[in-house]
Amino acid sequence: MNEQGDRRFWSVVPAGGSGTRLWPLSRAGRPKYLLPIAGERSLLQQTWDRLLPLSSPDRILVVAGAAHAAAIARQLPDLPEENILIEPQPRGTGPAIGLAAGIIASRDPAAIMGSFAADHVVTDTRAFTQAVETAIAAASQGWLVTIGIQPSRPETGYGYIERTDEVLELGAAVPGVAYRAAGFREKPSYEAAVEFIRSGRYDWNASMFIWSVETFATEMRRYLPVHANRIARIVSAWNEPERDETLAREWNAMKPVTIDEGLMERSDRLAVVPAEMGWSDVGDWHGLGALISDREDGNAFRGNVLAHATRDTLVWSTSGRLVALVGVGDLAVIDTPDALLVVNRHRAQEVRSIVDKLAGGMDDLI
Amino acid sequence: MNEQGDRRFWSVVPAGGSGTRLWPLSRAGRPKYLLPIAGERSLLQQTWDRLLPLSSPDRILVVAGAAHAAAIARQLPDLPEENILIEPQPRGTGPAIGLAAGIIASRDPAAIMGSFAADHVVTDTRAFTQAVETAIAAASQGWLVTIGIQPSRPETGYGYIERTDEVLELGAAVPGVAYRAAGFREKPSYEAAVEFIRSGRYDWNASMFIWSVETFATEMRRYLPVHANRIARIVSAWNEPERDETLAREWNAMKPVTIDEGLMERSDRLAVVPAEMGWSDVGDWHGLGALISDREDGNAFRGNVLAHATRDTLVWSTSGRLVALVGVGDLAVIDTPDALLVVNRHRAQEVRSIVDKLAGGMDDLI
Repeated sequence: MNEQGDRRFWSVVPAGGSGTRLWPLSRAGRPKYLLPIAGERSLLQQTWDRLLPLSSPDRILVVAGAAHAAAIARQLPDLPEENILIEPQPRGTGPAIGLAAGIIASRDPAAIMGSFAADHVVTDTRAFTQAVETAIAAASQGWLVTIGIQPSRPETGYGYIERTDEVLELGAAVPGVAYRAAGFREKPSYEAAVEFIRSGRYDWNASMFIWSVETFATEMRRYLPVHANRIARIVSAWNEPERDETLAREWNAMKPVTIDEGLMERSDRLAVVPAEMGWSDVGDWHGLGALISDREDGNAFRGNVLAHATRDTLVWSTSGRLVALVGVGDLAVIDTPDALLVVNRHRAQEVRSIVDKLAGGMDDLI
Repeated sequence: MNEQGDRRFWSVVPAGGSGTRLWPLSRAGRPKYLLPIAGERSLLQQTWDRLLPLSSPDRILVVAGAAHAAAIARQLPDLPEENILIEPQPRGTGPAIGLAAGIIASRDPAAIMGSFAADHVVTDTRAFTQAVETAIAAASQGWLVTIGIQPSRPETGYGYIERTDEVLELGAAVPGVAYRAAGFREKPSYEAAVEFIRSGRYDWNASMFIWSVETFATEMRRYLPVHANRIARIVSAWNEPERDETLAREWNAMKPVTIDEGLMERSDRLAVVPAEMGWSDVGDWHGLGALISDREDGNAFRGNVLAHATRDTLVWSTSGRLVALVGVGDLAVIDTPDALLVVNRHRAQEVRSIVDKLAGGMDDLI
């Protein structure tokens, strides 16, 4: 593309989480990112496609649990095997991104890296690429950079980034603008979210982080020194016979921590690149319905559907059966071979409670 | 039981109609009356059970289409084969009941007979029996007697019977009261239905008719003379070699007519026995849900159901799958192996429109 080729930009895709709010389509064994829910290719494959203009395949790493390594390898045939990093246990995004950063630094100490969720949707790839290019320029100056999504509603399920008025000097070749950030704000109350949007100074945190591995290592040592030490031991054993033993011992001893809480909410080297790129985290059935609906009545149908007097309803059927709707609205109907879900779209977040109930004896459906 | 044993009371069960409003559970090949939707036994079997105290098996006749004769014979093993009357084509309840009455008259000219739908529910069998016994006493005096169900709401989908103040003299042994009826009123407007209920003079027509075969024959000759003649020809050929030929010719030539329109709305020999017997026609999914719900939240679940924050919802699942509900209300979810229906219970009557749409290419699901 442009100068990133020289700068050796590396991409990391932490692929933890199963997306319980998209049950029963997503399951523990079939997490959301492996599903083709917004197009022909899975969300992971679309993430890969989006990163290829920025990082060649040997510079893309995926961090995942052992259970999903094979599926990831098959979905991304060009991903080198040594770039699939297996977490022995889930420890949150802090250790996952930390390990990837350590491995990258061992291969390329001058690397700039970015971390991108495996299961989000971006419809404007060009805007995404330009935002990352801008972030890379800021990261080269020693900032921990977040791409901030312009909020479209007072969402209480996301974190926010507050920006200052201070624009970073990045040079004329850079396609976008980066601001020094005032800080991260965790999931706000509704009233706070409304105020955030009114102020115009807050963007959504979409878990897109760009930094140099050098800056990252410095901040890790400062804010998460115990984690940093354990990760350093794992990385130094990575190409040695004792790798598995070291990984098991050091990894499992780490406390779970997200990169947001462990680092981004504490660092004073934060920058933000505001962007609009048609982003969605496809976090629940309501979000997916909004994403794929292209009809005036607000319906979105996948499968063999007959509807009468029906509006704003998502049907996702993989069972092959006829799904008939009469006089309903604001529903999501998810029809799989072994489980059927009917949920009020405005309460789509509560699908989790069903998955919790399944844990008491119907574990095979989780 | 009591004197009916002497009076040789005969029962007729017209089993036409497929109950399209209970699709996808009921199908053309699996009509509502063959389904065990309100208990262990099918609605037809429950009708049989209800009639046995009144009519011995040799005095119960079922009139049905050829497609359902085998299923009826299997569900009612004690029903004599010669008591299953096959309609060559659907012609409405007028010809169906008329033929049965003619056959009964040929076997027992002094018979009193009753006609009872195959697919209704009655929860108070004792009240039913007493109402029929009262009706038999009135029928013996030459009345066309209807059992009138006390209305519980201004239903616009039913016919009504208006009663006069004239109580028939039936003798002290009769358990109930019969009135001379002022007439039948077809499905009213909502305003008219409200007025009917306010007046206290109207009962629902539940298609329960009791009369002597002699009175019935007289009224048929008066109001439906062409039908009466054709039926007479069929009956006289019934035990002859030309039965099938005569049946096909005379039956198919008859105009379709219901017994309500053809006879009951025109006769001046009407009586009504008001009764409360826990009657329901289980006419749609809303009605079935109301019938079988025994929970405070108004839900009624059949199958493997997990519900969260859900009320007034009927789930009927025969697929064996888990059905999960989150945050919904006033729905019926009908889950069969080849079709799924999600319908607003207040629009349950519109399920018909789906069946109509299926006729355009998915006939195997009808």
